[in-house]
Amino acid sequence: MNNPPRIITLTTDFGISDAYVGVMKGVILGINPNVQIVDITHAVPPQDIHEAAFLIHSAHRYFLEGTIHTVVVDPGVGSDRRAIVCQTDRASFVCPDNGILTYLLQEIENGGEQPTRVVEIENKDYFLPAVSNTFHGRDIFAPVAAHLSLAVPLGDIGPPVQNLVRLPIPTFYVSDHKLTGQIIKIDGFGNAITNIPEDALPTSMSTYEIQIGQTCLTRINRAYAESEVGELLAIIGSFGMLEIAVNGGSAVERLGLKRGDSVIIRRR
Amino acid sequence: MNNPPRIITLTTDFGISDAYVGVMKGVILGINPNVQIVDITHAVPPQDIHEAAFLIHSAHRYFLEGTIHTVVVDPGVGSDRRAIVCQTDRASFVCPDNGILTYLLQEIENGGEQPTRVVEIENKDYFLPAVSNTFHGRDIFAPVAAHLSLAVPLGDIGPPVQNLVRLPIPTFYVSDHKLTGQIIKIDGFGNAITNIPEDALPTSMSTYEIQIGQTCLTRINRAYAESEVGELLAIIGSFGMLEIAVNGGSAVERLGLKRGDSVIIRRR
Amino acid sequence: MNNPPRIITLTTDFGISDAYVGVMKGVILGINPNVQIVDITHAVPPQDIHEAAFLIHSAHRYFLEGTIHTVVVDPGVGSDRRAIVCQTDRASFVCPDNGILTYLLQEIENGGEQPTRVVEIENKDYFLPAVSNTFHGRDIFAPVAAHLSLAVPLGDIGPPVQNLVRLPIPTFYVSDHKLTGQIIKIDGFGNAITNIPEDALPTSMSTYEIQIGQTCLTRINRAYAESEVGELLAIIGSFGMLEIAVNGGSAVERLGLKRGDSVIIRRR
Repeated sequence: MNNPPRIITLTTDFGISDAYVGVMKGVILGINPNVQIVDITHAVPPQDIHEAAFLIHSAHRYFLEGTIHTVVVDPGVGSDRRAIVCQTDRASFVCPDNGILTYLLQEIENGGEQPTRVVEIENKDYFLPAVSNTFHGRDIFAPVAAHLSLAVPLGDIGPPVQNLVRLPIPTFYVSDHKLTGQIIKIDGFGNAITNIPEDALPTSMSTYEIQIGQTCLTRINRAYAESEVGELLAIIGSFGMLEIAVNGGSAVERLGLKRGDSVIIRRR
Repeated sequence: MNNPPRIITLTTDFGISDAYVGVMKGVILGINPNVQIVDITHAVPPQDIHEAAFLIHSAHRYFLEGTIHTVVVDPGVGSDRRAIVCQTDRASFVCPDNGILTYLLQEIENGGEQPTRVVEIENKDYFLPAVSNTFHGRDIFAPVAAHLSLAVPLGDIGPPVQNLVRLPIPTFYVSDHKLTGQIIKIDGFGNAITNIPEDALPTSMSTYEIQIGQTCLTRINRAYAESEVGELLAIIGSFGMLEIAVNGGSAVERLGLKRGDSVIIRRR
Repeated sequence: MNNPPRIITLTTDFGISDAYVGVMKGVILGINPNVQIVDITHAVPPQDIHEAAFLIHSAHRYFLEGTIHTVVVDPGVGSDRRAIVCQTDRASFVCPDNGILTYLLQEIENGGEQPTRVVEIENKDYFLPAVSNTFHGRDIFAPVAAHLSLAVPLGDIGPPVQNLVRLPIPTFYVSDHKLTGQIIKIDGFGNAITNIPEDALPTSMSTYEIQIGQTCLTRINRAYAESEVGELLAIIGSFGMLEIAVNGGSAVERLGLKRGDSVIIRRR
């Protein structure tokens, strides 16, 4: 039996109304025509590194070992920001060193591990022949990802580096008998995903309430189906985190929520 | 020669600005790395089962026999609504039992046939190890579709079921010498697609008119090219149904149309 | 080793909220299940042939030799406009003959070459059995592209044709000691791409200025990183053309730019 094709994923802020993403795919398939390319999303808001960091972190665990994730939200393109490949037990991440791996690195460290290996992308043999100052997704990240899928050794890409750039990402904290978290992601349904994991929640909500702005919720639903259509609710979402949602609607519109807003759990 | 890769299609309301669709693809390729995944659309309006039902019905006939269609618009996720695989002569459909196959089943029955076999999805061996209450697209439908593409027998997925949920879908009718149909789909060009098939139309329109709200049309164009740019027209569209359109523009904007509006054909 | 799969790209104005694109892919894979399909974009504004012409021209050079590009922006569908396959040294283009190859043909001729061969699509053996008057993307262009990927000889598709339709595309010109160009493309970041190539620019900008409407710029940045966030700038973009941009923002919104606006370079 043949080996299955290697997978390269793409996560960018390039949108899908231009040819930028198609061109990256053309470059990748020109180097390895047998690779399988999967779009995570190209609708990261322009230059929103935090959003890309959250998305690749939440998605990568569902891909086969050995998958190569190309993550390009790159406001520093053309500057001296580093370009890197970060290899973990599960996958390789090809991206600018601008904080885009912050959630991933936090997860690895919370698990007591380190990335297997991180190199700076330096070897121009794996770039397109002409490198622009504005589109390294096409000229550097796509061809390097494609060469990695052909089993080019990581050491050939460039020298080891350390001290990757980190974003200041919010973590929930407990003080004065209350737990304070934050909304870290708004999804396309209008759900507000917090940084409060299921196992940080009180075992019973019977004496607690959840405060979001001026609104209080006194229970956590097990499923949307436990609520009425149009009802505002708190629920453990598919990321295993507390989410604020409206059954059949948008919590973000209902409450005017945005990333960074506080979500507080306290005794009633 | 190798067997060609099996095809799995995806139709959802997950949008493309989050990682939900990419994650489903990661799950599928983790189970069968040789499958070919095709997006039908991920822009079904949130929870709009009718729209998904129309889209999968209109699209499935253009895919190879044996294609596996994964259709996830699932407002009842986490409730006791059933999850099913419906197998027909041409294809398999993996979806919640919420009416999403209504147009397909209607077509099959109009042809005097029955789905070959329908089973309830029950065997957890084919799910992801952890099943959330909010994202069965990832945890159940994607892995079941992937296992089916590996030729897992349908009987292993779960027991036979009957009496699938149906949406009340509008059919055209004739009374008092007029034919009354409805707009069942608005497309991205602003065309309004009706439920009136070509063969229900009068053989000549010379003594008939088409009424849409306050507007009357007295002919059916053979092609856009038979009209002026900006002209409102009736045409047999690519679904074989009567459509209301504007050459180079949007009929929906011009006339303020929406799904459910009546379209009446009567003698002048 | 197996031959790698042939690549078919798709560039259309069909959007991604309907099933039109999925259906084209179903048709292609039904004829050649081993082809690799790549989306360039489906968000060409409806009927905007110029935009499609620009996009396919800018993208095709990044794809492997032998790639088949299917380009369907087709306001004349159902009329007597010709459907063609245009073969060049690098690739084949399957499209209506409505000017959609204008930038490509201009580039080929500027290089002193001619397309290798152009044929009119006539042989119905390579169409779907039923051809609508409104959706040749599905019924003609997709199946012809798929058959070409199976190495059907070009001569079997139809007879040679000449004198392809051209759009009047703007070229920059020099007069009265100033260079006048035009904005030919607005991208999703809000960058305004001009038709002024890097090699037409003064070797030093020290005595020149760039005028866009009421705004003047006196230098050309090498990279975004040379400017402040929020700064309006001129830059050589990834197409090798002069672009007007805002670092971390939208030049189009800032200056109210649109396609066709003049960009003038003159002595200060």
